Amino acid sequence: MRILVTGGAGFVGARLSREILRRGQLGGREVKELVIADLFPAPADLLADARVRGYAGAMLTQGQLLASGFDGVFHLASAVSGECELDFDLGLRSNLDSTRLLLDSIRASGKASRFVFASSVAVYGPEQGNPMPERVSDTHLPSPQTSYGTHKLMLEYLIADHTRKGYIDGRSARLMTVTVRPGKPNGAASSFFSGIIREPLAGVATTCPVDASVSHPVSSPGTTIAGLIRVFEADRQDIGARLALNLPGLNVTVGQMLAALEKVAGKVVRERVRFEKDERIAAIVGNWAKGSSADRAAALGLHADASFESIIEQYIADCRSQPGYPAEALRGL
Amino acid sequence: MRILVTGGAGFVGARLSREILRRGQLGGREVKELVIADLFPAPADLLADARVRGYAGAMLTQGQLLASGFDGVFHLASAVSGECELDFDLGLRSNLDSTRLLLDSIRASGKASRFVFASSVAVYGPEQGNPMPERVSDTHLPSPQTSYGTHKLMLEYLIADHTRKGYIDGRSARLMTVTVRPGKPNGAASSFFSGIIREPLAGVATTCPVDASVSHPVSSPGTTIAGLIRVFEADRQDIGARLALNLPGLNVTVGQMLAALEKVAGKVVRERVRFEKDERIAAIVGNWAKGSSADRAAALGLHADASFESIIEQYIADCRSQPGYPAEALRGL
Repeated sequence: MRILVTGGAGFVGARLSREILRRGQLGGREVKELVIADLFPAPADLLADARVRGYAGAMLTQGQLLASGFDGVFHLASAVSGECELDFDLGLRSNLDSTRLLLDSIRASGKASRFVFASSVAVYGPEQGNPMPERVSDTHLPSPQTSYGTHKLMLEYLIADHTRKGYIDGRSARLMTVTVRPGKPNGAASSFFSGIIREPLAGVATTCPVDASVSHPVSSPGTTIAGLIRVFEADRQDIGARLALNLPGLNVTVGQMLAALEKVAGKVVRERVRFEKDERIAAIVGNWAKGSSADRAAALGLHADASFESIIEQYIADCRSQPGYPAEALRGL
Repeated sequence: MRILVTGGAGFVGARLSREILRRGQLGGREVKELVIADLFPAPADLLADARVRGYAGAMLTQGQLLASGFDGVFHLASAVSGECELDFDLGLRSNLDSTRLLLDSIRASGKASRFVFASSVAVYGPEQGNPMPERVSDTHLPSPQTSYGTHKLMLEYLIADHTRKGYIDGRSARLMTVTVRPGKPNGAASSFFSGIIREPLAGVATTCPVDASVSHPVSSPGTTIAGLIRVFEADRQDIGARLALNLPGLNVTVGQMLAALEKVAGKVVRERVRFEKDERIAAIVGNWAKGSSADRAAALGLHADASFESIIEQYIADCRSQPGYPAEALRGL
């Protein structure tokens, strides 16, 4: 099989690529070639694998690459929420136009690729007459409050229509907020969901910009990637008629996250986090899902992380073994 | 005010344009110029009005026209359902790309035009786990079963995002099936909803391809156009946070339509319609909304046609007074 991972140099994409290479097969078929397309070059460990071909640069310039056709596609490449809010045209180009090009190319290749689209919990939002429930279900009426969420939702429907016509075999997996991310705080409104765990473990004091009662559905990178692969491997009839589904999320409050940190890493580590409300961030987060349910993912055998403790433990294990985690990540432990 | 009507040479668009010219104002502001853009030239009676400027040709070639900015836009231009199913690229180009160009142009003009998008009841569809209710409400979860419905839904969300950013003042009105349309049967699966009234009134025998029990939400052209204008004139706060709403539909069975025909035009006219099931058309229509509700339109003071009799009477009056209705339309009466 020949597989394409777009956004394959990013945090989730690189980890997904590693897992596909480690398994060596998808749905029992050998992965002979893994094409990683991203704005940035893929990490060295991936490029060192003989099965990997890396392409760096905007997808819109890679018509020739895309025209070759693939047995399977994981489409993760996307301008993120903050970027789209700052630069409306960038969002339209990176999300809508690039995906159109990808879908047009696959259709022209005549190979109806198995196609997993990484959608997002950002398709949901509150609105007059349709407030957010405690848990957004697979069939809660979406109402995105960002350009990013708007593009994700539009593309879910475009992918469903391509599938209906038989041009691809598509499905859209709505990712929950992935935590704990390695690296630096990045200015995204969701950054603190990783920061309040990552920074104290690295021995760095940090602030939490929202109240301890704020609740949100999160997922570890490992659980997220297992979900993407399971959705890829699922038979079409097991996906059902509606092709977009929630991946499982652990519904957790900020207070519970910090309690888990104390349990796993101790009181000293926990006390490196101080509450300092940022009204701007609190207002943004106030529009987000407080929790989610994922009945259809559960029917595919997918479940949320067992606890936030286990998510922190996964992060600590990753810092010791995974590429892309900085050496000083556990300096505070 | 300077107003643009795209698709303004079509059946609904031309009639909307006539009504705007007749009123001479929208929301109390004088309409000084009405630009009609369509693939085809606008009808002569419209072009004869000194306030009208007509542009014929694909919207994608009219960048200069669009770049000039408008106070208000009614965006009706669209490839229809049957065309999109036959030619996937045509649908993408005529619906998605053209609307992107229009929205990009308006944004570049810096005038946040009042913008009414003609969406469609075709955004709704049945699916596993989410069957169609007796009446689709404003907040029923859409699941389009055609490319046409897919494009309409995607554009509703794109228009909502442009509005959120302040680039336009947008709202999307989901049109019900408009009947009675003048002219010839056109091969669209919905054609018979007009044909079973229009043909017998013209003295022509015709067939009905579905059972008498088939139910569907319909609207006269007059009621549809009144809805589009009301949605245009409504204050933003009266529209609410969700910018897409159902226009009112009269929920009526085919049997009730024919009974109304007999009541208005007599038994001889009614008997020109013979039931002859077409399994292909019946299957398509089986995926359509059986009825609709329109609570938010009602809050704007909009109501469905009072009866199907009144819809037929409107058609008969139109045949006697409106341009675009052929001389032989009432030959069978």
